[in-house]
Amino acid sequence: MTQSRLKFVVLLGSLRRGSFHGALARSLPAVASLDAEITMLGSVGDMPHYDADVQAEGFPASVTAMASAIKAADGVIVVSPEYNYSIPGSLKNAFDWLSRLPDAPFAGKPVSILGGSPGPIAGARMQHHLRQVLVFLDAVAFTKPEVMIGSINTKVDVATNTITDETTREFVAAHLRAFDEFVRRLR
Amino acid sequence: MTQSRLKFVVLLGSLRRGSFHGALARSLPAVASLDAEITMLGSVGDMPHYDADVQAEGFPASVTAMASAIKAADGVIVVSPEYNYSIPGSLKNAFDWLSRLPDAPFAGKPVSILGGSPGPIAGARMQHHLRQVLVFLDAVAFTKPEVMIGSINTKVDVATNTITDETTREFVAAHLRAFDEFVRRLR
Amino acid sequence: MTQSRLKFVVLLGSLRRGSFHGALARSLPAVASLDAEITMLGSVGDMPHYDADVQAEGFPASVTAMASAIKAADGVIVVSPEYNYSIPGSLKNAFDWLSRLPDAPFAGKPVSILGGSPGPIAGARMQHHLRQVLVFLDAVAFTKPEVMIGSINTKVDVATNTITDETTREFVAAHLRAFDEFVRRLR
Amino acid sequence: MTQSRLKFVVLLGSLRRGSFHGALARSLPAVASLDAEITMLGSVGDMPHYDADVQAEGFPASVTAMASAIKAADGVIVVSPEYNYSIPGSLKNAFDWLSRLPDAPFAGKPVSILGGSPGPIAGARMQHHLRQVLVFLDAVAFTKPEVMIGSINTKVDVATNTITDETTREFVAAHLRAFDEFVRRLR
Repeated sequence: MTQSRLKFVVLLGSLRRGSFHGALARSLPAVASLDAEITMLGSVGDMPHYDADVQAEGFPASVTAMASAIKAADGVIVVSPEYNYSIPGSLKNAFDWLSRLPDAPFAGKPVSILGGSPGPIAGARMQHHLRQVLVFLDAVAFTKPEVMIGSINTKVDVATNTITDETTREFVAAHLRAFDEFVRRLR
Repeated sequence: MTQSRLKFVVLLGSLRRGSFHGALARSLPAVASLDAEITMLGSVGDMPHYDADVQAEGFPASVTAMASAIKAADGVIVVSPEYNYSIPGSLKNAFDWLSRLPDAPFAGKPVSILGGSPGPIAGARMQHHLRQVLVFLDAVAFTKPEVMIGSINTKVDVATNTITDETTREFVAAHLRAFDEFVRRLR
Repeated sequence: MTQSRLKFVVLLGSLRRGSFHGALARSLPAVASLDAEITMLGSVGDMPHYDADVQAEGFPASVTAMASAIKAADGVIVVSPEYNYSIPGSLKNAFDWLSRLPDAPFAGKPVSILGGSPGPIAGARMQHHLRQVLVFLDAVAFTKPEVMIGSINTKVDVATNTITDETTREFVAAHLRAFDEFVRRLR
Repeated sequence: MTQSRLKFVVLLGSLRRGSFHGALARSLPAVASLDAEITMLGSVGDMPHYDADVQAEGFPASVTAMASAIKAADGVIVVSPEYNYSIPGSLKNAFDWLSRLPDAPFAGKPVSILGGSPGPIAGARMQHHLRQVLVFLDAVAFTKPEVMIGSINTKVDVATNTITDETTREFVAAHLRAFDEFVRRLR
């Protein structure tokens, strides 16, 4: 098993500028003390609604660019809020596009999920629905430790893109280390 | 219990012009021999991706118009394909917008779901995820008979918006009659 | 709409004597200031594992007795912990038996769910899996307000079968009042 | 990567003697042309209902024996019907017991799922609920190709424990080969 530097890409499920999940996503490179490069994918907001008629005219550049970045990565880290007990529609729409590509970018790809909510249930339901989607995509979903951050609004700082709560920061770091190990085990 | 004419609105989860689910949705007024008016809601494709920053500038007209139509209706009929073992992102996005309105259009509203797939599993997973969303929205989800149409591509005609398979047509009609009864029971 | 006294039966998903959910279940008659009779069903632990060979020799008395009590009731209140992100096996086993009876006891029956957990996520996943089971059984699952009690071990007293946390007690009472209203609306 | 002989154990979710899933489970050693030993675990029907009071007196021998066999295996193959849109209660009960052992037998263990139903939807919902349970147990759930056998009653022979439908037999063999590869990749 080689110990070469890994490449992870981060897929964000929220669009608003002051998003707590956006801050969490952008905090990851600094939080992880890994021999890994962690970069943000493009915004799911840049993709049109999935429509097979649009697909017939050619995949949008936002879709093919994201697919290329995922294919070139060793793993994908999804960071997303929960909307209405499920996956945000705009994030799900990105999966709907990516799943249609002939050269499936998620097949065999390790995927980790991080999320939270202002309340205590912490986005658990989003994660379970997303895991079901990942089964169809034939991704290899990472399990534990699961990151579900309750009261996320009090634990990240959107101005500095940092996790301000130390317990949370250490837990996220432990998650990333375990995901890194999982990815190396699967190679 | 009054026997007045009911108003149902149909929410379609597919955008392409030749959609089998579009044909199914548009077939419903003719299939149902009900004392009910059944009309299509606007397209979920007309709504932007949900973004709290956009919301802060005011709800899009496509959202408020759909909400008004739902509030004025006695029940909502969702007709949708399944994408990647879950709800199509663009349909979920419509729920994400509608759920943010102060005067919640789905609260206490009876909702029925119809779907299918070209394969045999017939969209069951989309329906279960959508039911979980409806719990959050406090809608009253109708149960049986459930409509999950396998090989839907062989059972509807997109040129004429009709259900060509007689067994399917009768089953859909039975579903609509039972939903109509359920709605009247709840009033 | 008549204002007659309703009959509710409580189905408990935990077997141990000192169960927090047992205390919650037994607290309900005192908590609810309803014109309703609330009684406990028999223990799910009294039923054998579901086995079609056993069924062929006749339904166990524990199954038929519970079915009769459910059929005679206006609504069923399920109170259960979550085991391993889903429904406790022994509770699910009771549904497996009850679902096989020719005169389906859950068909059209209003069902409410209460649960919690020592942690913060509060059994949400048990409730969603149970709701999916209830769709198959054609029950009418009540939605809001949902009762998911975090840190349940600090909020009920198993010696006296009472809810000791006032906020929780009021919330449970509000749930029962709303369920009572829902049941009356459906009659 | 060594090419040593692997050991797989099969967990069956049905109790009746003439079970189609029992025949499927027992057919696996002959179907798989693998360098692997495939043996049946004990019956989930031998375990009592999970009860923390019983656990306090010591884990039943049926539980510890199954746990030992799982720990000694390279992978677990679950073969189960779907009951009421979810996992059979008696199978779930086995997971409830196994999850309580201090030396968690499923942690990091590769798990594959096979199932079917007499109807077309083929147990898909059982598989998704079971996958959620496996997340909690920190198992590594195998994904594709997924085995969901519609009309299973016409495709296996319970007298000879064979898969009689050739397409199904080849598909199950392909599933087992891919699972074997997945297990070797993870070691």
